[in-house]
Amino acid sequence: MRAVAAIGIGQTKIEEQWDKSLKEIAGEAIFAAVQDCGIDHVDGVFVGNMMSASANKQQNLGTYITDWIGAKHVSAVRLESACSSGSAAFRAGFLAVASGEVEIALVVGVEKMTDSPTAEITSDLATAASADWEVDQGLSFVALNALLMRRYMHETGWQHKDFAPFSINAHANAMQNPFARFHMELTEQKYLEAGMICDPINLMDASPIGDGAAAIILVPADKVSGRVIRVVGSAAATDTIAAHDRKDPTWLSAAERSSKKAYAQAGLSPQDIDFFEYHDAFTIMAALSLEACGFTERGEGPRMAAEGEIRKNARLPVATMGGLKARGHPVGATGVYQIVEVIQQLRGTAGKNQLEKARIGMAQNIGGSGSNIITHILRNND
Amino acid sequence: MRAVAAIGIGQTKIEEQWDKSLKEIAGEAIFAAVQDCGIDHVDGVFVGNMMSASANKQQNLGTYITDWIGAKHVSAVRLESACSSGSAAFRAGFLAVASGEVEIALVVGVEKMTDSPTAEITSDLATAASADWEVDQGLSFVALNALLMRRYMHETGWQHKDFAPFSINAHANAMQNPFARFHMELTEQKYLEAGMICDPINLMDASPIGDGAAAIILVPADKVSGRVIRVVGSAAATDTIAAHDRKDPTWLSAAERSSKKAYAQAGLSPQDIDFFEYHDAFTIMAALSLEACGFTERGEGPRMAAEGEIRKNARLPVATMGGLKARGHPVGATGVYQIVEVIQQLRGTAGKNQLEKARIGMAQNIGGSGSNIITHILRNND
Repeated sequence: MRAVAAIGIGQTKIEEQWDKSLKEIAGEAIFAAVQDCGIDHVDGVFVGNMMSASANKQQNLGTYITDWIGAKHVSAVRLESACSSGSAAFRAGFLAVASGEVEIALVVGVEKMTDSPTAEITSDLATAASADWEVDQGLSFVALNALLMRRYMHETGWQHKDFAPFSINAHANAMQNPFARFHMELTEQKYLEAGMICDPINLMDASPIGDGAAAIILVPADKVSGRVIRVVGSAAATDTIAAHDRKDPTWLSAAERSSKKAYAQAGLSPQDIDFFEYHDAFTIMAALSLEACGFTERGEGPRMAAEGEIRKNARLPVATMGGLKARGHPVGATGVYQIVEVIQQLRGTAGKNQLEKARIGMAQNIGGSGSNIITHILRNND
Repeated sequence: MRAVAAIGIGQTKIEEQWDKSLKEIAGEAIFAAVQDCGIDHVDGVFVGNMMSASANKQQNLGTYITDWIGAKHVSAVRLESACSSGSAAFRAGFLAVASGEVEIALVVGVEKMTDSPTAEITSDLATAASADWEVDQGLSFVALNALLMRRYMHETGWQHKDFAPFSINAHANAMQNPFARFHMELTEQKYLEAGMICDPINLMDASPIGDGAAAIILVPADKVSGRVIRVVGSAAATDTIAAHDRKDPTWLSAAERSSKKAYAQAGLSPQDIDFFEYHDAFTIMAALSLEACGFTERGEGPRMAAEGEIRKNARLPVATMGGLKARGHPVGATGVYQIVEVIQQLRGTAGKNQLEKARIGMAQNIGGSGSNIITHILRNND
């Protein structure tokens, strides 16, 4: 396989974009990425999206977006793996360039959720879980995560308040990210007082949905001179679709497997990762991700957060631009946002969020309740 | 890129499978493919599906199916490009093996449409077209094809009855295919008397939907000894999503482009293709495909059919197992069915439908009204 470099990035602010359509949002991110690297064409388009069939009554998004941006006749396809659709698209674009099939790949993750009433979004999000054994029993996606969080608290002894530092860190980092959905300082007090959604998950444990798009341009690394941001690890793994089918539901085995594979591809270990854009859709997922990826011992995720190790310039900065919790979670776009943010850090263009040490970054995107997990590691060769 | 071989195939009969769920249908095709080649594991799963978000309230199909078949922890993703989702999945599996990322790829196309009421299916199928400029104006997918057919008849002078040979050939070929939806001889009389759906498209111009799945196992060609069925061309191209945005709507430029690219990859020309599994979702698409792929002159598709050149063992046999018209069109699965049928012919296992000359076969899958077209060429090295 050829080495692959990311040369262009673009993103839109995540918010309720009532005045823009799905393609306009996608186009905004794409044109930003194209301008960022100055290319004049693309050879393949890879779209990450979860919900357009229902939320926008539009499928065939590869064509739809390719047509809108004027990339005439280019091959285009949509990738879907629920909330990890964005990094599934990135991985497809990466493999297309790595294989030699495509010279310039455009990856875009887009989600336009405010076309749908909220009740539909809840049932649409639940299509990530098992229709047969979870959703038909009335479980929503939040409820599934609430069960996991309750079980984890039971097993480890951590209390609800111990998850506060994950959300506080995310909100602190989002303050200076102009693309983030929330610019709101979060205190422990506010966290504790937030309204309950599904016990023990309250509003400050859950990430907000939103409309947004992020885009990345990939090319063979040997076409780039000077600083090169290379994709050095790309791995995906699955688990049972229903969480109750797992012997050990509080261990994200797909996160462990995909991160181990990505470490091996990159010739790295968890200690080498400078920062981690994790999938904090819920605070419980933040804790489970840190543990399964080998950044701490089992059951010790909340301790890492409590001791400040996840903060800016600490041992393992996470959610450095706000994470899903505060940057926002436009589901099928999230995976691309995460990688865009890794690239911002590796380039040294993360503004006030810039880390001192940012040579190797990892992004991990979770589809379903831990059922389809994709890990990417990127590296700056400077 | 490594050369890639198809070593296992499986398919289910296409019908209304009220007693089986989506995963059971997919599993049936997958286990047939696994048995066919005797592998004991797969490394990557690529699912082609268009409608499960609405028809089955289930997304994350990569995980869902991987879990069902017991392929623990394997990477899995769904590909969607409307009615060409099946060959989009095949192409993704092909690239994953070609790149060296995956050793054994499982490609499965599946659609389970009888969970939904018919009216919903009509609106779900329309998500392949432009929601902004076609569907919002009340166009269904049949109506779109009716406009194209009417325009073509106006431009070329062919009459409705001149399209009969396409459907008669498809039905004749389906008679001996046990997996086909219809086993019903079609005469010109029956064709002419069929009920009108959307003038000039009548029931015998349109392909039937249905439930079904088809699966293929791909491996590096150098792992196979003896007869090898190689994928020698794989190309995709797009056009505007709305048919009215094309300068020349009766010319399938995406079919021309993707077939030309596939010919070039394979070092072949149209004259070298022994048979063609085309996308005869409507008879007009049959005519347009033959022309755009260079098998006849523009406007001469119906003449090829009238003169019998598309029949078994004639100049260019098409729809050799019944085509979309009579084998059936379970939308996201169709592209995989087409390639399974190419492989049956190349292997010499097409039963009573076996062609005398079947060394090089081509399959072409159309998403949207000609907006996302994927062409594959396979070759038997015997």
